[in-house]
Amino acid sequence: MSPTASSLFAFAGGTQGPWEITDSNAIAGDGLDHASRLSVVKGPVAAGGDNSWVLRGFTSNVRYVERSEREALAASQPPLGRAEATRAALIPIRKSPAWWDLAQDERRAILEDQSHHIEIGLRYLPAVARQLHHCRDLGEPFDFLTWFEFAPSDANAFDELVGLLRSSEEWAYVDREVDIRLSR
Amino acid sequence: MSPTASSLFAFAGGTQGPWEITDSNAIAGDGLDHASRLSVVKGPVAAGGDNSWVLRGFTSNVRYVERSEREALAASQPPLGRAEATRAALIPIRKSPAWWDLAQDERRAILEDQSHHIEIGLRYLPAVARQLHHCRDLGEPFDFLTWFEFAPSDANAFDELVGLLRSSEEWAYVDREVDIRLSR
Repeated sequence: MSPTASSLFAFAGGTQGPWEITDSNAIAGDGLDHASRLSVVKGPVAAGGDNSWVLRGFTSNVRYVERSEREALAASQPPLGRAEATRAALIPIRKSPAWWDLAQDERRAILEDQSHHIEIGLRYLPAVARQLHHCRDLGEPFDFLTWFEFAPSDANAFDELVGLLRSSEEWAYVDREVDIRLSR
Repeated sequence: MSPTASSLFAFAGGTQGPWEITDSNAIAGDGLDHASRLSVVKGPVAAGGDNSWVLRGFTSNVRYVERSEREALAASQPPLGRAEATRAALIPIRKSPAWWDLAQDERRAILEDQSHHIEIGLRYLPAVARQLHHCRDLGEPFDFLTWFEFAPSDANAFDELVGLLRSSEEWAYVDREVDIRLSR
């Protein structure tokens, strides 16, 4: 898949799926209902059925990454689905109306110049594979669903990465966040 | 509605609706099937029925506009639905894979530094009201649907605006475009 292709994905939490949900914590705002397993499905998935919740989002073109950053990312970003990456995290977040009311240059300045979001992510490559899904424009309860995959030996590094982002200026605009950890 | 709110709209071409379709021309790539009238509906609309075609898109936050430009736009942008604005245009466009493979700074440079897209639009305010709808991420046949409203006496100015944009560097990345003109 091209990194800029737009594809819909559904993350369904319930009693089925290849991933065991080992932990789910509300970091900001409301959490999600209990689910023991997760399936990730490409394409539309109806809500309800056996699922406790279904979160939908689409992959898309980059919105902030500049050319030099893109080249650095492309040089060290691992693919999803590595055999050794048996740990994962699904982190749905919503940003405040104040964030969405900012112009493009103001959001970029907070995201990278002040918060170093892209640079921090680069430090944890190639250990942590990452895929961003957009959902605000679908009328979903969250704005973004980020999916991460890593080996058990990189779990501490992943916690460090998440901690650095949460202490950044950008995170002052996050008004709902759930941290779901998984194992397969 | 907040300019940054995300809302789905459907543009349905067929035999019904308040807008008469007075002209429809394929500027690049394939045109659209014949339709005599257009309705604009907020929310989901099923394809088929009496419609020749249904194009869907969502309003969203700005993707390129910087703070100073945003203030200039806010100072002179007219609302949709002015009594005197009895002429409209719906211009669906699709951009090439080469465009979507560019990084954010490369797309911004082509759109504004080289093509003056935002500055050209500002010159035709407050005559021409405009609303952009995004549709690439919905898997639609076009990437953007732009809706314009103006008075009959501003129709020549609108043609000039469209001509300036079509001769810009940015338009080298447009691989499908239909120009639909309407009257009510």
